Amino acid sequence: MLEDLKKRVLEANLMLPKYGLVTLTWGNVSGIDREKGLIVIKPSGVEYTNMKACDMVVVDLNGNVVEGDLNPSSDTPTHIVLYKKFTDIKGVVHTHSPWATSFAQAGISIKAAGTTHADYFYGDIPVTPQMTASEINTEYEKQTGDVIVRTFKDNDIDPNNIPAVLVNDHGPFTWGTDPENAVHNALVLEEVAKMTYHSLQLNPHNIRMDQVLLDKHFKRKHGKNAYYGQKK
Amino acid sequence: MLEDLKKRVLEANLMLPKYGLVTLTWGNVSGIDREKGLIVIKPSGVEYTNMKACDMVVVDLNGNVVEGDLNPSSDTPTHIVLYKKFTDIKGVVHTHSPWATSFAQAGISIKAAGTTHADYFYGDIPVTPQMTASEINTEYEKQTGDVIVRTFKDNDIDPNNIPAVLVNDHGPFTWGTDPENAVHNALVLEEVAKMTYHSLQLNPHNIRMDQVLLDKHFKRKHGKNAYYGQKK
Amino acid sequence: MLEDLKKRVLEANLMLPKYGLVTLTWGNVSGIDREKGLIVIKPSGVEYTNMKACDMVVVDLNGNVVEGDLNPSSDTPTHIVLYKKFTDIKGVVHTHSPWATSFAQAGISIKAAGTTHADYFYGDIPVTPQMTASEINTEYEKQTGDVIVRTFKDNDIDPNNIPAVLVNDHGPFTWGTDPENAVHNALVLEEVAKMTYHSLQLNPHNIRMDQVLLDKHFKRKHGKNAYYGQKK
Amino acid sequence: MLEDLKKRVLEANLMLPKYGLVTLTWGNVSGIDREKGLIVIKPSGVEYTNMKACDMVVVDLNGNVVEGDLNPSSDTPTHIVLYKKFTDIKGVVHTHSPWATSFAQAGISIKAAGTTHADYFYGDIPVTPQMTASEINTEYEKQTGDVIVRTFKDNDIDPNNIPAVLVNDHGPFTWGTDPENAVHNALVLEEVAKMTYHSLQLNPHNIRMDQVLLDKHFKRKHGKNAYYGQKK
Repeated sequence: MLEDLKKRVLEANLMLPKYGLVTLTWGNVSGIDREKGLIVIKPSGVEYTNMKACDMVVVDLNGNVVEGDLNPSSDTPTHIVLYKKFTDIKGVVHTHSPWATSFAQAGISIKAAGTTHADYFYGDIPVTPQMTASEINTEYEKQTGDVIVRTFKDNDIDPNNIPAVLVNDHGPFTWGTDPENAVHNALVLEEVAKMTYHSLQLNPHNIRMDQVLLDKHFKRKHGKNAYYGQKK
Repeated sequence: MLEDLKKRVLEANLMLPKYGLVTLTWGNVSGIDREKGLIVIKPSGVEYTNMKACDMVVVDLNGNVVEGDLNPSSDTPTHIVLYKKFTDIKGVVHTHSPWATSFAQAGISIKAAGTTHADYFYGDIPVTPQMTASEINTEYEKQTGDVIVRTFKDNDIDPNNIPAVLVNDHGPFTWGTDPENAVHNALVLEEVAKMTYHSLQLNPHNIRMDQVLLDKHFKRKHGKNAYYGQKK
Repeated sequence: MLEDLKKRVLEANLMLPKYGLVTLTWGNVSGIDREKGLIVIKPSGVEYTNMKACDMVVVDLNGNVVEGDLNPSSDTPTHIVLYKKFTDIKGVVHTHSPWATSFAQAGISIKAAGTTHADYFYGDIPVTPQMTASEINTEYEKQTGDVIVRTFKDNDIDPNNIPAVLVNDHGPFTWGTDPENAVHNALVLEEVAKMTYHSLQLNPHNIRMDQVLLDKHFKRKHGKNAYYGQKK
Repeated sequence: MLEDLKKRVLEANLMLPKYGLVTLTWGNVSGIDREKGLIVIKPSGVEYTNMKACDMVVVDLNGNVVEGDLNPSSDTPTHIVLYKKFTDIKGVVHTHSPWATSFAQAGISIKAAGTTHADYFYGDIPVTPQMTASEINTEYEKQTGDVIVRTFKDNDIDPNNIPAVLVNDHGPFTWGTDPENAVHNALVLEEVAKMTYHSLQLNPHNIRMDQVLLDKHFKRKHGKNAYYGQKK
């Protein structure tokens, strides 16, 4: 079942090492078939080198394995929460990409500091609060999803406009309109984290960009007045 | 038309990912035929992998597409301003190369800190002022060119001697005597930005080089008394 | 003798340049056959390019060469101490990998700052005290092992839970359940060192992770309640 | 003439881009035949890609071109001074390798901070004083050699024990027992500069290693009591 989505999710997973976003097995991509309510996700702890489309695991929105011989990624419950609450998204990525993870470990959001950021993310990349002992000890991976969703809700952020988050002391999750787009956002996040890290070292007090410039660049590429790129 | 220039502009564009200066599609190179008053430029938002010479777009100095099926780079109006005002240049490059962009995001110029810099740039690489709301909201890409030109004029900088600028909160533009030379300058700028970043961390208060040494190295490679390299 | 272990130790040594953990010849891997009490280790100062399984040197736990035409690594006495005192380990790695070595040169431990660290190391990576003149001048390489062992004992650290150390002003040693696992830990250590370096620059005062989260991630992958990965 | 030395100097030059020590044409290697008093050196400003052994230029110790159709490296007078005054060396390298150059631009020596350094360099890598206007304006490249030699003499440093220097606001020169060894030292210098930069950021006040450890590691690899590596 979902053979086409499995191929796409496999390919999207393989983009992670290609883009230098993962070391060893530290990352996973999923995609969802919204009509069927089924998620295709990477198996847990499997190396990228020999992974095949048929190794992808199909789970439903309750976390039950519907098809597949391998355990799904241990982060599957986090992906499920994001698909349930961020209802427009169709792909989710988790990595420990080093620059974004450095911010996550520092507990610091990535400020919108330039147009590279603004072309993809309509504001700062938020960092979640640290999880409580009770969140960690009970359904940890589901609670990780919940703290992400709460961070967006509490700060009134539209997850379609800022498709990325830093989980405190952990690392980034990104999402998108499909698995490829979610990987694309993971790559941009890493580039932006790298550049903004260095900007902060050069100028610790004043790197946030002007709001008018942020509006301009985000809207140049997104929404009904976008004019960047080629007509579809 | 301009088939030869299209090939050169294509090749110059392909040097950007080869030199590690662009991620995804974040960069563009153009070249100009000064006699005909026509610019050849990369199409907007197109991936480098499959780009062909025939995908290059020809525009005139009013921004009208003269030949080509694709939209020209959204930065075309910036290139046009530079060609109009910096009348000796024949190639323009824009990238979001990470080290130069880190300085642009910090709003800090790249000081002439050593002979690598002095071999190519006759003084600090300037950063533009932040653009105003009115500049951003009206003909933004043209205004980006205007703020670059104004930065050089206000600071009495000869664009032939310092063929690079940092657009504040955005990233670098470079130019040169042809498209290849403009790419070459983009690469040198990135190397210089990387090294000067680290010099600044080691010695925040005192990295500007001696003016006599700057004169020596720039003039060793440029102008009528140059003696570096082979006789042409 | 030990032809199979020689092949594995060779392969493990070749993983060091592949993973970017060594420059020139600055690293070595060994493995032990616990039943026979014999160690297989890389020869001293030999380039990786042409190394063969038959170049590996077999030494006993007293440091006597049992088989092999080349001198064993000059770090052999350190490996021997680790095998004698950390009785569960079956592989040892030494590198001068740049991020871990930067911490070693600074004399600073690598704090547990995020889940990447916690997935592999159950607490901070300790740094040894500086060695005394007498330790350096008499049986230096053996004393290097002794100072590592003492660091773990004095701080009540289980070397099976934190299979890595920074030797002060020198560099990292890692170990594991076999030579491949020890190399794996060397790679993770380097990634963690890189990320935690940057987290420290972003937030110098507060990067240590919550103990509950450290427990959760380490135990998710290690011990009897582990649930990460596939069933063996 | 000197066909064998030309091949070796060519190969040594090609190691610079292979090891990531040069961008574009920013580096040169020479070798000397001490009996004949002739130096073989890279031509000036020529790309590495198509360089052949027959492009190497032969100059005598007065700087006269003895053989070759191309101009020798503009840094030739610096090489000549080093060969004349450091009478044991047989190879010289100049690069703008980024980490070492970052220290040179900052005007800061590279402190002996760990055993990687001590295995190759018996003390801090010195930085020259800034050159005076008169030194820059008259026989600049020869004066560059003179300021290097003076730095070693004034600080009572043996160039055979510390085969590297940072020319202030410029970049590194290294040398060695032959052209390959000089390149080797250039690579080690760059690694050491990278690591010590990061150690300094982690611990700005206290990174110099113990003198006893410095003695131990340098003498373990150099001089009559060396025991590292294989017997020759």
